Amino acid sequence: MAGAEFWYEFASTYSYPAVLRVGALAEARGVSLVWRPFLLGPIFAAQGWRDSPFNIYPAKGRYMWRDVARTCEAMGVPFRRPEPFPQPSLLAARVALALQGEARAAFSRDVYMAEFGRGLSIADRAMLASLLAACNVDPEATLARAESDANKAALKAECARAAEIGIVGAPSIVTGDGEVFWGNDRLEQGLDWASGRH
Amino acid sequence: MAGAEFWYEFASTYSYPAVLRVGALAEARGVSLVWRPFLLGPIFAAQGWRDSPFNIYPAKGRYMWRDVARTCEAMGVPFRRPEPFPQPSLLAARVALALQGEARAAFSRDVYMAEFGRGLSIADRAMLASLLAACNVDPEATLARAESDANKAALKAECARAAEIGIVGAPSIVTGDGEVFWGNDRLEQGLDWASGRH
Repeated sequence: MAGAEFWYEFASTYSYPAVLRVGALAEARGVSLVWRPFLLGPIFAAQGWRDSPFNIYPAKGRYMWRDVARTCEAMGVPFRRPEPFPQPSLLAARVALALQGEARAAFSRDVYMAEFGRGLSIADRAMLASLLAACNVDPEATLARAESDANKAALKAECARAAEIGIVGAPSIVTGDGEVFWGNDRLEQGLDWASGRH
Repeated sequence: MAGAEFWYEFASTYSYPAVLRVGALAEARGVSLVWRPFLLGPIFAAQGWRDSPFNIYPAKGRYMWRDVARTCEAMGVPFRRPEPFPQPSLLAARVALALQGEARAAFSRDVYMAEFGRGLSIADRAMLASLLAACNVDPEATLARAESDANKAALKAECARAAEIGIVGAPSIVTGDGEVFWGNDRLEQGLDWASGRH
């Protein structure tokens, strides 16, 4: 079975519509998907950015907010601008990485829906615990595993790997032969490539 | 008939596949297209950039070159990286603006094909003159009109208008109700919007 990696960052606006679409798109192409949460912070810092480029460059920010709102409207999903933006995503990323397989995917989707659909704070430990419970995993055990030294180191390694692959933004599809496709609007192209349809 | 504006910058890599696609996409949707050449330089300068962001941020540059090469390969069109990049696009933009209607569109497509298909310098006056001749317009008269004070002022006004609209990159589709769709991969969405299909 063909495979691809789906790299996402919980603070990323365009990752929100992407997580809602990517599962069905991969399945339709017979592509097995590995969900890889990471942090864009280190990649942005390497470019000299200490904040989201959408805050640093207000014109790009204005464009992005309108564009994501249009995209969500077309999909029929709610969209709210979280405050503050970007949301602190470290804890959510650690928790997602501490999960495996479908639990990771389900929890990740729920985090985005809480953040961009309901405007909740994803740095809120109790909120994340309630999402975990809804995914039928033990909240306290998962949070403890998420904050273990081993899991913290694993997330750092994921961030280093993202930079090494050449990932410059989220979401990104990475194929087995090392191609990177960046953006919610490139999911189809990346998954087509992964399935050998290019 | 529904209408839309197609804003493009001759130095822009993603505008190359876009100019080759946009005409047929607009026609298929019954959208009348106005081609509006402009310069990104003033918009980038307002963000503190004195060069292409693809040069300022090498990781984004590496991603972009691979991405555009893949896009062109999928379209079956040649792609060469022009040297230097970005190409000085002022003269080509002035000439395009001095033309009207289909002559502007045809000349613009030819400039991109020379630049990104054959690797020619678009700052070369003689090269632009030969493209004008191939479009059946008088090269010397057009170049003289292009470099008139009135046309220079008109291009400056176009750049100011682009910033005012909220254009942050090229290519961009701008609809009658003021929506901006940025990117070669958003042409369909922008033209759908313009045609009332959203």
